[in-house]
Amino acid sequence: MFFEKVVIAGIGLIGSSLARNLRRNRQAGIIAVCDKNPLYLQQAKALGLADEIETDIKKLVRDADLLVLATPVGAFGPLLKEAAPLLKRGSIVTDVGSVKKYALKEMEKYIDKESGIAVIGGHPVAGTEKSGPEAGFADLFRERWCILTPSKLSTPEALAKISEIWQAAGMRIETMTSEHHDKVMAAVSHLPHLIAYSIVGTVADLEGYEQKEIIKYSASGFRDFTRIAGSDPTMWRDILLNNKTTVLELIQRFVEDLIALERNIRWDEGDKLFDLFSRTQKIRKEVIEARQDQPEQEKRLQAELNNLKN
Amino acid sequence: MFFEKVVIAGIGLIGSSLARNLRRNRQAGIIAVCDKNPLYLQQAKALGLADEIETDIKKLVRDADLLVLATPVGAFGPLLKEAAPLLKRGSIVTDVGSVKKYALKEMEKYIDKESGIAVIGGHPVAGTEKSGPEAGFADLFRERWCILTPSKLSTPEALAKISEIWQAAGMRIETMTSEHHDKVMAAVSHLPHLIAYSIVGTVADLEGYEQKEIIKYSASGFRDFTRIAGSDPTMWRDILLNNKTTVLELIQRFVEDLIALERNIRWDEGDKLFDLFSRTQKIRKEVIEARQDQPEQEKRLQAELNNLKN
Repeated sequence: MFFEKVVIAGIGLIGSSLARNLRRNRQAGIIAVCDKNPLYLQQAKALGLADEIETDIKKLVRDADLLVLATPVGAFGPLLKEAAPLLKRGSIVTDVGSVKKYALKEMEKYIDKESGIAVIGGHPVAGTEKSGPEAGFADLFRERWCILTPSKLSTPEALAKISEIWQAAGMRIETMTSEHHDKVMAAVSHLPHLIAYSIVGTVADLEGYEQKEIIKYSASGFRDFTRIAGSDPTMWRDILLNNKTTVLELIQRFVEDLIALERNIRWDEGDKLFDLFSRTQKIRKEVIEARQDQPEQEKRLQAELNNLKN
Repeated sequence: MFFEKVVIAGIGLIGSSLARNLRRNRQAGIIAVCDKNPLYLQQAKALGLADEIETDIKKLVRDADLLVLATPVGAFGPLLKEAAPLLKRGSIVTDVGSVKKYALKEMEKYIDKESGIAVIGGHPVAGTEKSGPEAGFADLFRERWCILTPSKLSTPEALAKISEIWQAAGMRIETMTSEHHDKVMAAVSHLPHLIAYSIVGTVADLEGYEQKEIIKYSASGFRDFTRIAGSDPTMWRDILLNNKTTVLELIQRFVEDLIALERNIRWDEGDKLFDLFSRTQKIRKEVIEARQDQPEQEKRLQAELNNLKN
């Protein structure tokens, strides 16, 4: 797969990691980058990830073969409103957003059915809590799953092309409806992130505690939640507000279960605690067996270590 | 510091990592290990971590200079009931338990004031989710904090000796009351673990979801909770039941905050979400600045990598 010109809107962790792969795999002639943050644009240029940089997407998209939306999903609408009328027939628009129903809705709103532009929803399920072009790296996507959600504006050809891009980056592809995507992600990603944000807020605000001590002893558990709760605020605000119904349902379920656990503790029901904790230990084993257990940074160090040893 | 004979009761992650340090730092003549799991005893022997192994603690403690309790705290009472009458004057008993009020209470219950045995409560704040002697490693404790909680049975000499052991293992020492320890740990460790167990249980039980998909896409957030919820069930049952009052209070606080967040989502209060998520991002930065951010496995790989490069 080769695109003469790819425009990446949003050169953060995912956008820049994709750019690194497009370069490495020689899948793009020109990479043009749009971002509202001029510092990110300068960094992308300095890192050799961008041939053209602009804060104004209109100046980039006229001759693009592929437009990748890699901003927080809340920015998709405003960007497409400007970009869509300028895109040429035969070009493809895709995205990397973590909510797919809303993303497709925005794309379908601004892209005309008769325009000859194909739309493929995409979600490379990979990431770290870090943001910006300097945080990205080419191996981010390796051995992770990429979920593609076709829309009314999809074509088999466009789907195949987008699949090839992510496969070349090391991903395995799964195709599903945007509804199913959002339901699954609410459980495995959106609820966990929300809980992490919530608990870090709670612990940080506890009166009668010294903040210094909280940080000092954070390696005992709190630390792991701060990592998740260190993720990009705009991105996560947009995700949670745009997958609201399922997220709200899951919060209720979670609170119910937590209250039950609270009762187990209050009434000294150690056997019930032990049963739950044994079940969750088995689930951890399944995650390890599916080789999804290694955090990205660890995966990266491991790869470097293996390289040095061989 | 040198002990002629150290008895370690419980040769799991912490016990075996301590044994590795005692060997490396030549701080023990004989290391004798007691565990109710015969496999762990065999592994400890095979790893060179134990000179004597027994499932019966009575066979080991008679000539011990130091007894380290490294089992789940629920086993402290039964073990001390048997061991305490056999310990010699001038010996020291310490532990590595994650709750200190209960641990000291158990130690003070079985060790006579007139026995000439000193008691120091200890909590090396380090660990991974893994269990057993093969999961331990000498560098586990490096650059982490060890909290010592003196008791009525403590002496300055015993405190100094136990400090030296942990310092030699790379730890920084902090001394505080058992009450304060349990209050801080409830917030930074016990509540986070409970929440992780709870959410993994909730997500795993969701009807209408395929378990396979939950595991498959777990790298998007859920994975990190399964890591914490993969911790030893017995150990965590004992911790939560023995720091009940504070833990129950904190669950209430957490639920209140989560419900507020739920309302923010329901009423589209994006600015409030953004404010919280920005605050938690700052807290993450503080954790990084305090150099408590690196998970143990990552720290380990980094050290190995640095060694190979130099």
